[in-house]
Amino acid sequence: MRISELSARTGVTVATIKYYLREGLLPEGARSAPTQATYEQAHVERLRVIRALIESGVSIAESRRVLDALDHPPASAHDLLGAAHAAVLPSFDGAVDVTAAEHLVAQIGWQRGMCDDRVLAGVARALEGLDDAGFSVSDDVMAVYLDSIKQIAHAEIAGVPTESSEAAVRYVVLGSVLVEPLLLALRRVAEQIASAERFGPAEAGA
Amino acid sequence: MRISELSARTGVTVATIKYYLREGLLPEGARSAPTQATYEQAHVERLRVIRALIESGVSIAESRRVLDALDHPPASAHDLLGAAHAAVLPSFDGAVDVTAAEHLVAQIGWQRGMCDDRVLAGVARALEGLDDAGFSVSDDVMAVYLDSIKQIAHAEIAGVPTESSEAAVRYVVLGSVLVEPLLLALRRVAEQIASAERFGPAEAGA
Repeated sequence: MRISELSARTGVTVATIKYYLREGLLPEGARSAPTQATYEQAHVERLRVIRALIESGVSIAESRRVLDALDHPPASAHDLLGAAHAAVLPSFDGAVDVTAAEHLVAQIGWQRGMCDDRVLAGVARALEGLDDAGFSVSDDVMAVYLDSIKQIAHAEIAGVPTESSEAAVRYVVLGSVLVEPLLLALRRVAEQIASAERFGPAEAGA
Repeated sequence: MRISELSARTGVTVATIKYYLREGLLPEGARSAPTQATYEQAHVERLRVIRALIESGVSIAESRRVLDALDHPPASAHDLLGAAHAAVLPSFDGAVDVTAAEHLVAQIGWQRGMCDDRVLAGVARALEGLDDAGFSVSDDVMAVYLDSIKQIAHAEIAGVPTESSEAAVRYVVLGSVLVEPLLLALRRVAEQIASAERFGPAEAGA
């Protein structure tokens, strides 16, 4: 198909498609004439993934790294998850003290060597952010966070498809990144439900 | 204290403090001379909250709305939570179909009128994002998401402090927004732990 049809089928403007081509997110089509290229169904699917990443708040540079992990999967499913996480996290420069984070995640079975440095640094930075704001999470609430998140991760990893490595790659890389907005959105709804139950319903309803 | 001491005590540069003053995030200090103002401990605390919001990825405009909810709390704790959520969410323009989202959150006790339209629209957009990327969450995994998130929200709302409305405001507004990076970071660690348990440990350790 031509670029105009690719645009029509994905709802992405021709200008934006050209931008993704220039940025290397979308592979070039096959040249059918000096100023014309043809695109395949694979381009339609790749464009949908790009849109989903960008709309989830993933930057162009991060999206390029996520797509690179999709295109060049490492040998093991575990390394693949590391690659997906690394794509959306800043590199670890050793500037953050991970002691408190290590102590916290040891409660859900973390042992040295089990995860990427920058993932642990992410927990450390989040704890620092709360601390800097003078906000403390009580031990009771933190215990529920740890237990609930552990259940989520176990269900996710148990569900990694094993029928093909391509399906596993897609599940791990996209699932890790794209499900984040869903979990945050569900938490807001659940907080409002719990709040309505405790404090009474909102004045203006849905 | 002068602006230089406020900067030294918070680690925020004078230029950035002046920017927050211009943007209305930080209240002006008391004028002590035509070109000089003095700042109080309250400015130190407010600056820490602003830093925490900005570093959590909350924009300047969103931070202004979160701080406004802190400064002008609505009458009930439930409306307060709505104000905090509204501050960090795009307004609801009716452009998204919330039917699937309503169906989903009904499983955790949602009933019409229990939550803000834009919070429900957030779930709808997240589901659309997954759908657009051709990524589907299995019923088993979704059931774990819903149950785990419900537990988190219940623990959080049960912990709303009741000793003063100021403490309740701080807890609800900041907790809702600032805990997000912690939950996402914990999920990444928990995924890597579950993955190491299932697929073997990473090559390069922490």
